[in-house]
Amino acid sequence: LERTKTMPMSLWRSLRKVGRDDPRRAIYALKVGTALTLVSLLYLLEPLFQGIGKDAMWAVMTVVVVFEFTAGATFYKGFNRALGTIFAGSLAFFIECIAAELGTVSRAIFVGGSVFLIGFAATYVRFIPRIKKNYDYGVMIFILTFNLITVSSFREPNVLKIARQRLYTIGIGCVVCIFMSLFVFPNWSGEDLHNSTADKIEALARSIEACVTEYFNDDMSKETAERKSTRDTIQKGYRAVLDSKSVEESLASFASWEPRHSSYRYPWQQYVKLGATLRHFAYTAVALHGCLESEIQTPQSVRSLFREPCCRVAGEVSKILRELAMSIRKRQHCPPDILSDNLHDALHALNSSIKSQPRLFLGTKNAQAKSTILAAQTNQHSSYSTTALPSVKTDVSALLDFRSKREHHSERSTLKPTLSKIAILSLEFSEALPFAAFASLLVEMAVRLDLIIDQVEKLAKEAHFKEFTEKNDIK
Amino acid sequence: LERTKTMPMSLWRSLRKVGRDDPRRAIYALKVGTALTLVSLLYLLEPLFQGIGKDAMWAVMTVVVVFEFTAGATFYKGFNRALGTIFAGSLAFFIECIAAELGTVSRAIFVGGSVFLIGFAATYVRFIPRIKKNYDYGVMIFILTFNLITVSSFREPNVLKIARQRLYTIGIGCVVCIFMSLFVFPNWSGEDLHNSTADKIEALARSIEACVTEYFNDDMSKETAERKSTRDTIQKGYRAVLDSKSVEESLASFASWEPRHSSYRYPWQQYVKLGATLRHFAYTAVALHGCLESEIQTPQSVRSLFREPCCRVAGEVSKILRELAMSIRKRQHCPPDILSDNLHDALHALNSSIKSQPRLFLGTKNAQAKSTILAAQTNQHSSYSTTALPSVKTDVSALLDFRSKREHHSERSTLKPTLSKIAILSLEFSEALPFAAFASLLVEMAVRLDLIIDQVEKLAKEAHFKEFTEKNDIK
Repeated sequence: LERTKTMPMSLWRSLRKVGRDDPRRAIYALKVGTALTLVSLLYLLEPLFQGIGKDAMWAVMTVVVVFEFTAGATFYKGFNRALGTIFAGSLAFFIECIAAELGTVSRAIFVGGSVFLIGFAATYVRFIPRIKKNYDYGVMIFILTFNLITVSSFREPNVLKIARQRLYTIGIGCVVCIFMSLFVFPNWSGEDLHNSTADKIEALARSIEACVTEYFNDDMSKETAERKSTRDTIQKGYRAVLDSKSVEESLASFASWEPRHSSYRYPWQQYVKLGATLRHFAYTAVALHGCLESEIQTPQSVRSLFREPCCRVAGEVSKILRELAMSIRKRQHCPPDILSDNLHDALHALNSSIKSQPRLFLGTKNAQAKSTILAAQTNQHSSYSTTALPSVKTDVSALLDFRSKREHHSERSTLKPTLSKIAILSLEFSEALPFAAFASLLVEMAVRLDLIIDQVEKLAKEAHFKEFTEKNDIK
Repeated sequence: LERTKTMPMSLWRSLRKVGRDDPRRAIYALKVGTALTLVSLLYLLEPLFQGIGKDAMWAVMTVVVVFEFTAGATFYKGFNRALGTIFAGSLAFFIECIAAELGTVSRAIFVGGSVFLIGFAATYVRFIPRIKKNYDYGVMIFILTFNLITVSSFREPNVLKIARQRLYTIGIGCVVCIFMSLFVFPNWSGEDLHNSTADKIEALARSIEACVTEYFNDDMSKETAERKSTRDTIQKGYRAVLDSKSVEESLASFASWEPRHSSYRYPWQQYVKLGATLRHFAYTAVALHGCLESEIQTPQSVRSLFREPCCRVAGEVSKILRELAMSIRKRQHCPPDILSDNLHDALHALNSSIKSQPRLFLGTKNAQAKSTILAAQTNQHSSYSTTALPSVKTDVSALLDFRSKREHHSERSTLKPTLSKIAILSLEFSEALPFAAFASLLVEMAVRLDLIIDQVEKLAKEAHFKEFTEKNDIK
């Protein structure tokens, strides 16, 4: 009973959310309604119905099936449908010419046999990757139309007339769809591709910043809700990039169908290449996040020694990413000095701060000596002097603490870690090892940034972005 | 001209490849051919045609559209088609009852208006994620059928008869499809999900082994072709896991439609969870591969000090992964001692070998001293005594060497690195830092292995695997 009360409310909420997330959806729905009403006129208006008759049904069917969200997708489907229908019609006509010579029984056998053979062959061909990618829908329509014409021609003599009528009405349907999607509030796949690329770069920038901030956040008392939201930001950032492969590829293949937009303004192959580079970069972001979630943790007192240089490197990296995203959005070339000396200096600072702490990377054997050094170091960095001295013991308790917190949220996270003998054993490893991994990943990230800049510049050239004029404002 | 000669050959090759990759495809194509011939009989056999008439067309159409590769997908489409048709028929009948009272003009307006409204509303509803996931096809069929019935009823009075006839024939089509996909050489999505899970685990094992072997491979003279094939093995391994998300989710959603197989033998949610854990693990494999491709490299002479313990850990990890895959394939529980002491010992060995080389992790400031130690160490490990002493200089040349090789292959790799000022700067970092990252990732991998074992055991319980009986033979 309670559920029937809340159902309409939750339905209403999800309906509103759909529209708010992307208002073009509501416009698209209106366009579909309009297109359907237009083809219905073929039935509803007397003179039109006189001309076309009951075959107008095929126009309705075409609109329902072909009219997609973006112009490219509509083109793809319309083209495939037209092509499939024409091929199927020709083949059916050919078969009919042969069958016309035969007697009733042998004709039925001949038609049945050809239905079987064509059905088998066309279905098998659909598995060829190149055909699956570009003509899957066309082959399906081919099978459909061929069967309908061949089989119904068995009972109705003038197959040519059927085929022609059907082709006309499917043509009308395709024209209505293409007109609506090209000229009435068009949605371009190329534009979606363009914007989603900029979005992804920005998401990466947010993810990296949040990750590094969280790594050096020693305020354990912080609200768990707040921590969860940080983790969400991090994961959303790189997942947006990693999960984008299939969406991106279909957008690119639809974009290749869009006439004016195809290659001059939106060189779709280049977007796909840039997407691959972004995923390559995102793997490092995932590994960096892995350092946060790792079962073996460098104590905060050690980490805090490197907080400033690490944050500086991460800040520079995400600043450059933001500039890249901004220049894509504004469709202008990147600033020539995008690889500023700041990143260079930040890396230098990280390097020298690591070199200045050589004893940290000694094994735990020297734990006592290290603790003493650490204590001294920690006191120098006044703000962190309250941290406890690190020892294996505090680590274990921190880990247990961390784990119990995670178990608390385990109903949400599918990746609940279990505390096995391995996890406990691993704590005996040098505590500095995980931090070394973290720092190395940061440096690797700075290096891979170069690949992204390279691809963005290629994109700028191929897409004829305008020259860089003035410094973008980045908040 | 040349192309027209080679075309048939390449077509033939891809046709054969399609069948060899998965022979079930040929069987499926034969099944489609048979199903199409069966529904054609509705036209071809006189008594059947007398009973059903021209509406038999809808059966043909249903078979073409609904008959999918696996039983689950066919169920999903058949159910959606039936549901969409029934809802649309009822609504169309309701609309017709109201419209029947009106005059011709106002009736046309009323029908047009309802076509627009229903088209708009249904299209909009398709964007709600939950509906998109489970009922997208059903809603499309709803729009299609509603329009066809409403609009054609405008010219033909007895709409109820149209709707009933159509429902019958669509029912026949669905029954033929479901019969063929359930009882004639059925392909189960659940089974695909099961096998692909085992495949993925094995691919991960191969990837890790190849990655670690390559990392410690100091034989630079090795054929570049061979190196490339190793890189392919590594990438194929983790890509198989990382790119599997959307395929896996659709397989799981189809598996949920398969009656006998649904939850007793193939608990599809658990396969999805295991898949997520595998991706979580694969991120570490990617980061490990990143160590190979990194612009900053620890010299081989340093690496070779840790070759044995690292290879041992990697070997144990991939051995356990293989055992897991094997137990999934055999549908039996994992051996209780799967987390053997071997992995434990291997991690210990790695730990102590890192601790025994504390001075390696000093900064490059002490390069001279380190070189001396290294030379001594290298001599102890007799087999590597010929390696040159590491210095920043040899590193740069090695990197340049490496890069020029990569550029040589750049036409294949989209991720060609560029030698920027960052890359050169990075070399100044402590040479041991990248190795520390590598070791840390190996340890992290061993820890995450535990999560996989956990999920596989849950799967074994939910899928009622048989008890573990004897040690699997793993070559």
